[in-house]
Amino acid sequence: MATFVLVHGSWHDGTLWADVADRLTERGHEVHSPTIAGHGPGASRAVTHDDCVASITQYLDEHSLGDFVLVGHSFGGSVIARVAERLPDRVRRLVFLNAFVPVNGTSVLDNTPPAYQELFPQLAAQTTDDTVMLPFEVWREAFIGDADLARAEETYRLLTPEPLGPTVEKLDLTKFYSLTHIPRSYVLCGEDAALPPGDPDHGYLANARRLGVFRLVTLDGSHEVMFTNPALLATKLELAGRD
Amino acid sequence: MATFVLVHGSWHDGTLWADVADRLTERGHEVHSPTIAGHGPGASRAVTHDDCVASITQYLDEHSLGDFVLVGHSFGGSVIARVAERLPDRVRRLVFLNAFVPVNGTSVLDNTPPAYQELFPQLAAQTTDDTVMLPFEVWREAFIGDADLARAEETYRLLTPEPLGPTVEKLDLTKFYSLTHIPRSYVLCGEDAALPPGDPDHGYLANARRLGVFRLVTLDGSHEVMFTNPALLATKLELAGRD
Amino acid sequence: MATFVLVHGSWHDGTLWADVADRLTERGHEVHSPTIAGHGPGASRAVTHDDCVASITQYLDEHSLGDFVLVGHSFGGSVIARVAERLPDRVRRLVFLNAFVPVNGTSVLDNTPPAYQELFPQLAAQTTDDTVMLPFEVWREAFIGDADLARAEETYRLLTPEPLGPTVEKLDLTKFYSLTHIPRSYVLCGEDAALPPGDPDHGYLANARRLGVFRLVTLDGSHEVMFTNPALLATKLELAGRD
Repeated sequence: MATFVLVHGSWHDGTLWADVADRLTERGHEVHSPTIAGHGPGASRAVTHDDCVASITQYLDEHSLGDFVLVGHSFGGSVIARVAERLPDRVRRLVFLNAFVPVNGTSVLDNTPPAYQELFPQLAAQTTDDTVMLPFEVWREAFIGDADLARAEETYRLLTPEPLGPTVEKLDLTKFYSLTHIPRSYVLCGEDAALPPGDPDHGYLANARRLGVFRLVTLDGSHEVMFTNPALLATKLELAGRD
Repeated sequence: MATFVLVHGSWHDGTLWADVADRLTERGHEVHSPTIAGHGPGASRAVTHDDCVASITQYLDEHSLGDFVLVGHSFGGSVIARVAERLPDRVRRLVFLNAFVPVNGTSVLDNTPPAYQELFPQLAAQTTDDTVMLPFEVWREAFIGDADLARAEETYRLLTPEPLGPTVEKLDLTKFYSLTHIPRSYVLCGEDAALPPGDPDHGYLANARRLGVFRLVTLDGSHEVMFTNPALLATKLELAGRD
Repeated sequence: MATFVLVHGSWHDGTLWADVADRLTERGHEVHSPTIAGHGPGASRAVTHDDCVASITQYLDEHSLGDFVLVGHSFGGSVIARVAERLPDRVRRLVFLNAFVPVNGTSVLDNTPPAYQELFPQLAAQTTDDTVMLPFEVWREAFIGDADLARAEETYRLLTPEPLGPTVEKLDLTKFYSLTHIPRSYVLCGEDAALPPGDPDHGYLANARRLGVFRLVTLDGSHEVMFTNPALLATKLELAGRD
C-alpha cells in the first residue's frame, strides 16, 4: 500500500479531495491532502509561490512523511515540481493530473493560452487582494462540463479566490528538470477543456511531454473529475502511482 | 426536456438523422432535422452558403422554434455558426459535432487539409452541376471506418452529391465570433479520420479551440457515428446540449 | 476469415505475438508472425534494413502467402511499408499499430524525438555489436505503463538487443507513398508514451497522417498492449483488418 499526498489546484483547497481520498483509503492507502498556503476559506492571499511550496514541505515534515506518491492537480503541478526539488529523496513518484509542468523560467500563467493571460490580471485588478475568481461560465463549460448544472453550481460554491501572485511568478525549475531519476506519471482527463485540448503548445500533453520519460494514464472526465467521478479517478491514481 | 435542431453535413440530408432523432425523441426531447438547401435527393444544387443558412432559419421560423439546442455536423458547423448570427436570441446552445468552426473570412474548404482542397474542385469540374461526390474508398476508410463493409456500402447509397459552391465561399463570421454569450459544446468522435486526426491546424480540436470557452464531450466512433452508433450519439448530444 | 501477418517492432521477435495470435486464431483467422532478420534470441545483429524486409518477403514466399493483412508494430511499420513496395499485389491491407510511417528519405530514428536520436547511438557505441538495449525505466514507464511492475519485469526479460543499423538507414519510400490503392488502417493505443503523445511532428498521429486516406481504430493501452491486453488488441486488429 502506498502513501498518497494530493496537492490541489487553483480555487481548490485540500478538503475538496475528500471523495477521492475516501476511495484511496478504502483501498488501503494512506492519504494526505494538505491545503496550499493562500488557499481555502479564510486564508490570507498574500503569498508567494515559495510560500505555497513551503506550506506543503512543512506539512510533509510535520507528518514525517517520506516515500510518498506526490500528486499535483492543475496549478498543483508547479507546486509538486518544486517540492520535489526540496525533498528529492522522499518522493517515490510524481503524478501530474491535468497539471502544469511549466517551462523552466516561466510562470504558470505563461503556460496558459493568451486569453487567460489577459483575463486573469484583469480580474485580479478588480479586487482589493489581487485575487482571481473563475467566472461561473468558464467553470461550468470548460472545467466541469461533465457535471449537470446543479452539480456545477454546487461545486462552484466550494471554490475560493485564487491569489494571482504565485501564478505570475517566474519559476526556476532547473533542479526539477535534472531530477530525472524520480519516476513520473501524467494522468490525462480526456474531456478537459480548461486548457485548450490538443493545443500543440499549451495543451495538457505539451505539459506532459516536458516530463521526458513518463507513464501516461488516461480517463474520461473533465478537469474536475475529483467531483464528477472520484471512484474512477482513485483507480487511475492508483495505477499512476504504483511502481 | 430540450428542443434539438440537428443540421446535417455534406452529402447528407435531414432524414439521415432518423436513428439519432428517434433516440432523442424516446428520451422526451423535441427533435427537428431540416434538410439544408441544395442537399438531399432531387434538390437543385445551385445554392450559395447564404441559401443554406436561409433554408434553416426559414424552417425555424415556420415552426416557430426558439430556445433550441442547435447541432451542426461537419459542414453543418459553418451553417449553425451563421444561423446563430441571424437568430442569436433563439439559440440556447450551439453543439458542434466533429464540425467545422471556420476561421473568420475563410471558406469551409480552406479549413480542410491540402489534399481535399485539391481533390474537391477537381471532382466538381467533372460534373455538369459543380458538385462533389465523395469517393467510396474515402467514405469507407476515413469517414465510416467503424462500420463493416456492408453497412459502409448501404450508407454510401444514401448520400447525394454536395454542391461545391457553399464550401468554397469565404464566410464573414465576425458576428459569430462576437456571440460569446451563447454557450457552446464540441462533441468529438475519436475514430474520425475525415479530417486529419491530431493535425494541429486542420484537426477537429483546432476547430474546437476557435470556440473559446466550450464544453468538450467525447465518444468512440467515426465521422458517421449517427449511422454506426446512434444510441451513443444521442446520449452524448444530450450531455452536450444540457445547460 | 482473413490471413494476418504480424510484423513485430524493435526488441521483439515473432514469438511475442503469441497471445494475440492465439485470439485471432480462435476467431478463425490464419496468423503468421515471422521474426525479422537480426532480431530474436541468438540471431546475428549484422543486418541492414533491406535484410529485415527480405526476411519477411522470404517468409511470405516460402509460405506462399497472398491476400494477407500485413500488420506492423512500431519499427515494424517501416518494414511493412517496404514489404508492400515489393509485393504490392499480395497485400490486402496494411495495418500500422502505433507504428512508424517514416517520412520519405528519412530513417526510423529520424522520426523519433531528439532525446532518442541522441540516446540510441550512445547506447550502441557501448556495445561490441552496435545494438541498443532499451533501459528498463523507459520500458516500464513509457512503453508498458499499463502493466504492474512484475509484468513489466517479466516482459522486459523477453526482449533482445536491437541492431542500430536498420533504424539509422535512410529509407527510400517513394514507391510506398505511391501505393495509395492499398487500403490502410492505423491502430492507435491511447496510453502509449513511447513516442511523445500529442507531439505534432513526432507523435503517432503525425505518422498516421502520412498514410493519406486511412481508417483509424483506437483502444486503451500502452505501446505493449500485445502483452497487457491481447484480447482487446486482437479484436481491434480484426476491426482494422476487415475490408
